[in-house]
Amino acid sequence: MSAFPERTTREEVELGSTLQPKFGPDGLIPCITQDHATGEVLMFAFMNAESLQLTLDSGKATYWSRSRSKLWMKGEESGNVQLVREVRTDCDQDVILIKVEQSGPANASCHNGYKSCFYRKLVDPKANDYVLETTTEPLFDPKQVYKK
Amino acid sequence: MSAFPERTTREEVELGSTLQPKFGPDGLIPCITQDHATGEVLMFAFMNAESLQLTLDSGKATYWSRSRSKLWMKGEESGNVQLVREVRTDCDQDVILIKVEQSGPANASCHNGYKSCFYRKLVDPKANDYVLETTTEPLFDPKQVYKK
Repeated sequence: MSAFPERTTREEVELGSTLQPKFGPDGLIPCITQDHATGEVLMFAFMNAESLQLTLDSGKATYWSRSRSKLWMKGEESGNVQLVREVRTDCDQDVILIKVEQSGPANASCHNGYKSCFYRKLVDPKANDYVLETTTEPLFDPKQVYKK
Repeated sequence: MSAFPERTTREEVELGSTLQPKFGPDGLIPCITQDHATGEVLMFAFMNAESLQLTLDSGKATYWSRSRSKLWMKGEESGNVQLVREVRTDCDQDVILIKVEQSGPANASCHNGYKSCFYRKLVDPKANDYVLETTTEPLFDPKQVYKK
């Protein structure tokens, strides 16, 4: 059950001024999360209607965890909360983009301790050897933060 | 059929130095495309193994069009090609992030003529009115570029 406006015409969805998000057959919409200050892409996750609404209402990024099948306010365990500074959608409104200010002890988004989940890049994309290098250092030790 | 390395252990996938991309049950992996110079998120699309391999080999962003069920080299119609400058993946390697240099006549990624598909933002996320504003101007007229 979603309070979001119904999707209307393609013209209105693509060029209009009303948020009409498209949730997939599984009830989810992809969300890209970007650092508000630097533009760095921090993570990629999914939201259902409830988590998107909670994100808007609370100003704290809240996702839907597919692995745990539950709402997941970012930082609820680690304390690394994401304060929402901007909410965007794409042309056909089937993706959400939020810009956030990382808050909390480590300023990290990734459960492996890195600021961004995208901490590895291909050394040489054309080399056909699929070798990744890690381009940054972890900001916290996951073993200390997540006691499972 | 993919030439990409098989997925091995969680440790190797998350912290290792080999690209082991996870394609979903539909054979697709989400791809975030970012402007290499500014960090602006330009678009979000999907790749299958073939389009990811073509992206690496050719250095030009190539996606899988779900609506047309075909490979789609970005810019094949509009001329606005994306030259790949960096390829990243996330912690569990189920998302690709590419940083590109937009090339071609309009330097635009969106079929509606905008540089980025994310040309609208919520005016006030907490207002609960779902009002979007367009924050940029189109760089080309889609009617002139796409003759369908």
